[in-house]
Amino acid sequence: MTKAKQPTILVVNDDGITAPGIKALMHTMKEIGRVVVVAPDSPQSGMGHAITIGKPLRLDEVDIYEGIEMYRCSGTPVDCVKLAVTKVFNGVKPDLCVSGINHGLNNSINVLYSGTMSAAVEGAIESIPSIGFSLDDYSMQADFEPCQKFVKEIAQQVLAHGLPAGTVLNVNFPAGNKIKGVKICRQANAKWAEEFDMRMDPYKRPYYWLTGVFQNNDQGQDTDVWALEHNYASIVPVQFDMTAHHAIPVLNTWLFNV
Amino acid sequence: MTKAKQPTILVVNDDGITAPGIKALMHTMKEIGRVVVVAPDSPQSGMGHAITIGKPLRLDEVDIYEGIEMYRCSGTPVDCVKLAVTKVFNGVKPDLCVSGINHGLNNSINVLYSGTMSAAVEGAIESIPSIGFSLDDYSMQADFEPCQKFVKEIAQQVLAHGLPAGTVLNVNFPAGNKIKGVKICRQANAKWAEEFDMRMDPYKRPYYWLTGVFQNNDQGQDTDVWALEHNYASIVPVQFDMTAHHAIPVLNTWLFNV
Repeated sequence: MTKAKQPTILVVNDDGITAPGIKALMHTMKEIGRVVVVAPDSPQSGMGHAITIGKPLRLDEVDIYEGIEMYRCSGTPVDCVKLAVTKVFNGVKPDLCVSGINHGLNNSINVLYSGTMSAAVEGAIESIPSIGFSLDDYSMQADFEPCQKFVKEIAQQVLAHGLPAGTVLNVNFPAGNKIKGVKICRQANAKWAEEFDMRMDPYKRPYYWLTGVFQNNDQGQDTDVWALEHNYASIVPVQFDMTAHHAIPVLNTWLFNV
Repeated sequence: MTKAKQPTILVVNDDGITAPGIKALMHTMKEIGRVVVVAPDSPQSGMGHAITIGKPLRLDEVDIYEGIEMYRCSGTPVDCVKLAVTKVFNGVKPDLCVSGINHGLNNSINVLYSGTMSAAVEGAIESIPSIGFSLDDYSMQADFEPCQKFVKEIAQQVLAHGLPAGTVLNVNFPAGNKIKGVKICRQANAKWAEEFDMRMDPYKRPYYWLTGVFQNNDQGQDTDVWALEHNYASIVPVQFDMTAHHAIPVLNTWLFNV
């Protein structure tokens, strides 16, 4: 038996290349493979699947942590993945793409808004086994230590098994050191109820800060919201085929007069 | 029988409030309801489901087209929908949300990158029947006239039937005046093969423009790509539950050692 080749792991995030969460992730990944980091040069939370098409991008190698190949990118998390595949790996796909560890949950409907998850989804579109990791702690002082053994184990499982075609994992961790285990879940039916905080600028013109309250409308015990509330790490397999297949027969009953 | 109340229609887009596409859409919608426009003050193509959380937003009423209530917003297409629901409609949901008409296709995988479609998806998250419209013509001189009768008919059908819970329509039109009819489709399995155009700035530092080639990896005749290639308007029902339900039993066979 020959020794298995060390896997190459692309690490990306949306909180930016200097965030503690990506530091935790790259150090965990370094235990299982060769790490290459391509991350935004500034925070890109809430960027969803945005790409940069109206202006050019910068990509510069940086030397922050000893022995880890790192690049900062001026674009979005999805731009980082596209640039990594094309310009850093020159079309040779890495064995794994991991995104995070995000400062704050990306469970349920947040999968759509999350730059962390969109980067992982972009990895999956590129046929790279991909995982997004998020922790329920927005603080820059968040303690990633309790979830790191889960991060390592889940990454190793994905490297060993691969993922079903067209899927990517959305992994969320509760805060604290009492994580009971891992649950495979579906995305809870939940949304944000927006509240805009209106203020007046010094010129007496209004401006608005987006705020909101997370509303869970799902009583299921098989959801990511349920798992996290009960101190489990949640794993939701996510797909980028957004077709509502069940709605196709319904729409085919409509009669169009044009 | 009493006369039906005129429906209230929120019109949004990602090409910005002065784009010809939104002008065509608002004039078509004016034939069937009361129109309120809330659109970005500048082009927001490729913004996906991005929201603005690191800086405040502006929302200003503008008077561009006689008799149409219009607001320009400094944020993303999704911000526009959130601000419309909360600050323009004050929580009273409109009867319909339409987004577009986009200058350029948003078929297949483009549903993820598209600000036009993300605005429509956000409408659906807000439980508003929602439709995104796109035309296969990037030009600012694009001729929207041939597709306008389809836009009107599809909007009327949605007002009459509603949409299955958690779904939104992604409607794309071929260019030209030979549209054969409407096909209900699934999202084609396709992606962009990135090509970054590297240039040197006057200071001899490299920068990159994102470009790419659309690759259809799907031979199905029930896809949006097929329909458009054969001069049909494509309608894909899209859902925002991104769970890959078929992958849950697969992941449940994995044994986690943590």
